[in-house]
Amino acid sequence: MSFARSLPASVSIREVGPRDGLQPEAPVSVEQRIAVIESLQAAGLRRVEVAAFVSPKAVPAMAGAAEVVAGVARPDGFTCVALVPNLRGAQMALDAGVDELTVTISASAVYNERNVKMSIDESVTVIGEIVAAARAGEAGDGGAVPVDAVISCAFGSPYEGEIAPAEVVALAARLADLGTRLTYADTTGMATPRRIDDLLDALEQAGLTADVGFHLHDTRGVALANAYAALERGVARFDTSIGGLGGSPFAHGAGGNLATEGLVHLLDDLAIESGVDLVALLESADLIAELVGRDLPSPIAHHGPRTRLAEPTT
Amino acid sequence: MSFARSLPASVSIREVGPRDGLQPEAPVSVEQRIAVIESLQAAGLRRVEVAAFVSPKAVPAMAGAAEVVAGVARPDGFTCVALVPNLRGAQMALDAGVDELTVTISASAVYNERNVKMSIDESVTVIGEIVAAARAGEAGDGGAVPVDAVISCAFGSPYEGEIAPAEVVALAARLADLGTRLTYADTTGMATPRRIDDLLDALEQAGLTADVGFHLHDTRGVALANAYAALERGVARFDTSIGGLGGSPFAHGAGGNLATEGLVHLLDDLAIESGVDLVALLESADLIAELVGRDLPSPIAHHGPRTRLAEPTT
Repeated sequence: MSFARSLPASVSIREVGPRDGLQPEAPVSVEQRIAVIESLQAAGLRRVEVAAFVSPKAVPAMAGAAEVVAGVARPDGFTCVALVPNLRGAQMALDAGVDELTVTISASAVYNERNVKMSIDESVTVIGEIVAAARAGEAGDGGAVPVDAVISCAFGSPYEGEIAPAEVVALAARLADLGTRLTYADTTGMATPRRIDDLLDALEQAGLTADVGFHLHDTRGVALANAYAALERGVARFDTSIGGLGGSPFAHGAGGNLATEGLVHLLDDLAIESGVDLVALLESADLIAELVGRDLPSPIAHHGPRTRLAEPTT
Repeated sequence: MSFARSLPASVSIREVGPRDGLQPEAPVSVEQRIAVIESLQAAGLRRVEVAAFVSPKAVPAMAGAAEVVAGVARPDGFTCVALVPNLRGAQMALDAGVDELTVTISASAVYNERNVKMSIDESVTVIGEIVAAARAGEAGDGGAVPVDAVISCAFGSPYEGEIAPAEVVALAARLADLGTRLTYADTTGMATPRRIDDLLDALEQAGLTADVGFHLHDTRGVALANAYAALERGVARFDTSIGGLGGSPFAHGAGGNLATEGLVHLLDDLAIESGVDLVALLESADLIAELVGRDLPSPIAHHGPRTRLAEPTT
């Protein structure tokens, strides 16, 4: 196997820690979530998924989504993103004044059914309705509110096993036709560098390479290697979570999402621009560790960047 | 940045768990260490660093090295490796009947001084003496006993910071002249894909690319990405440790060595031959977890390969 590769000059990060990271945790107050988001802004993050407009009964940690959106600072160039599960959530998020919506749909029929109790076709229909509502809404700059569709289980399903890249691409094409941007999620840590390459090959063949995003989980410790494989193919958009917090089981030290500081550490070393300051980011990691009250999965949060020298001993 | 890359068809693994993995742990009996090694043999590992011939006072976990070498099975094609810190240790290991010696030397003068109380020049001299003793010794096939020199801090030092690849290559050239094989170690987790590339570039320029080996630590969560970057450059020899146990600080879930099961999981998926059976390997991981009495750093040990499906629920 031999291939030509090329790294991007810059990478755009969507920080999902305040949503994907905090969602499975014991609830943290709106004020504290705003403090985390503003700390992330101070580190240079310019697109943050700040909340999910979901039932607070189902997901207590996401209660007060509108208050978070209303209360958080909006520095120049900042994109305030919220995840919405359905049209009602989208309308609430638009009313609250978000700049961008995230919707999810699974490439795995079983996962989609279990997660949102809908078939994939039904989810596509709902996303079409959300896109229409977002077009009618007003973004900060006066245009339509963009919608990013995250395709979960894009590298395999814990229920069905392998999902052919062609199947993922077919779903992506339907969503692209609706007008969403596309992010491919490794929901349960089944991606590998080879599967990243396979999906990108299939997306290339389908002409769907514009603005490809990846949302990687570190369940099997492969997230950073996957990100590197994607970078080598020119992928320039990633979801990450401060501290590596996120949706996966935390037992046994397994990570959740790809950690923001882990990706930024890699990008800095490769001289790929992200706009994020790693030292400031580690302060955000400390803050969120304090709020969730436990050690973070991310090794960089603990050991710092490679440039951190040993303390002199006497 | 753009480059052509090529994966190797097969990879040779030196399993260092029974030595590097167990060394910082509370001592485990000779019989239990033999059981771990034979479990690793059963999984298909054919080169295992079984012990270190060091002072049992300094490293209690490595006491009984000769008994381990004498007691362990020697299936066909198995290479029984021991680490030796000096000529005395080398003679003991040769007397015990090992097939191969590992010696270490640091590219960092400060690290070398702290680790073995010698200058780099003094360590080179000692390695020359060990190589001479190993030439006089008899390997299983009747030839000289090979010596592998592990250059620690090959990607930077926690004391001096960056170490130029040219400096590492100059040391490697001196050792190659002595007749050692060469392994480049990321002792404190300072390697990154870029540093892997930089070192390989420098080795290429110096004509030192034959049988390059890497010994990677996961302190900063980058070990697997580094291994992937090395594989893409055709590197086909790696040190790994079952369960990811090993020399780095374990606090906060940071890994030690690159986990054997993490590398094999990656290799299997890339269709790179290693001769190792991942399912059997996970049994070795369970065994060593039981012996050290705690959770292993390796996520694959906990979550299994990507092909492991969710348990059906009713």
